[in-house]
Amino acid sequence: MRKRSLPLSQVYRLLEPGPVVMVTSARAGRANVMTLSWHTMMEFEPPLVGCVMSDRNFSFAALKATKECVINIPTAELAKKVVACGNVSGRRVDKFKAFRLTAAPAARVAAPLIAECYANLECEVVDARMAAKYNFFVLEVVKAWIDPEKKNPRTIHHRGRGVFAVDGRTIKLPSRVK
Amino acid sequence: MRKRSLPLSQVYRLLEPGPVVMVTSARAGRANVMTLSWHTMMEFEPPLVGCVMSDRNFSFAALKATKECVINIPTAELAKKVVACGNVSGRRVDKFKAFRLTAAPAARVAAPLIAECYANLECEVVDARMAAKYNFFVLEVVKAWIDPEKKNPRTIHHRGRGVFAVDGRTIKLPSRVK
Repeated sequence: MRKRSLPLSQVYRLLEPGPVVMVTSARAGRANVMTLSWHTMMEFEPPLVGCVMSDRNFSFAALKATKECVINIPTAELAKKVVACGNVSGRRVDKFKAFRLTAAPAARVAAPLIAECYANLECEVVDARMAAKYNFFVLEVVKAWIDPEKKNPRTIHHRGRGVFAVDGRTIKLPSRVK
Repeated sequence: MRKRSLPLSQVYRLLEPGPVVMVTSARAGRANVMTLSWHTMMEFEPPLVGCVMSDRNFSFAALKATKECVINIPTAELAKKVVACGNVSGRRVDKFKAFRLTAAPAARVAAPLIAECYANLECEVVDARMAAKYNFFVLEVVKAWIDPEKKNPRTIHHRGRGVFAVDGRTIKLPSRVK
């Protein structure tokens, strides 16, 4: 794999813009993928990520049981596969096979990385206290990978009902904010 | 004000893409604005929004005390003001005055709407159990406003250190997902 390790202090720069992500899990040797937009950074370092995963999802049970997952960040070229993964359940379909996604081994968790995504964040569940009421999990990113060849990754942002905004131009302003 | 009421069922379509927002609060007759990117939808209807607000921020205390705020969504034209609001503290500066932002009265909360933002979401804090550990608040949107003249609002997405991705093209794919 051509990916390189990304310092954990830089993880917020990937998730703070709010891209659609693909979350992978693995349970009893069976890997699954789900599409997710309801996430937020919660701490810079160690990077904490809050995410809401419907308890109707097959991945919800895997996350609760294994306490591990990978957040994979796709670029616009993968939009069709992102939507396809959101349209079916892992209960019935092996999404890696059906949508030709490549599972690569992670370093710290059992869930696989999606090779086609430009960044992969290996995560452990560190707080599930709000899972019962809000389906909300707090994840800690324990290992991060990035494709050094993707210089300006254009991520996608879900506006509902299959409509996505693709990253356009970039602006840079003097800022004291991290 | 030319804004119209937006059905609460549509609120997720504005926040799910992960735009930078400006959160307004009011305490003892004094309004303040802060820039925020760490938020996520948590429920469709009534719309619940989770957000992380540093306890070093002047707005944190106002939110804890008043249990109300407004999430205002700016477009790219306002990027300079968004960054300016993030660079100074409301302890020292009246940001509405300093950055020429127009405060408009809200319908359900004391915090003001920012007239220049294309959408405004009036919120009440419904759960602050995770405020002590994570500075995390669960907000319920109780009233939403949108500018009907802004047909394709281009929001901004913070990549850290004053770098923003501006919404570019839009893609639409057949999706069963809400």
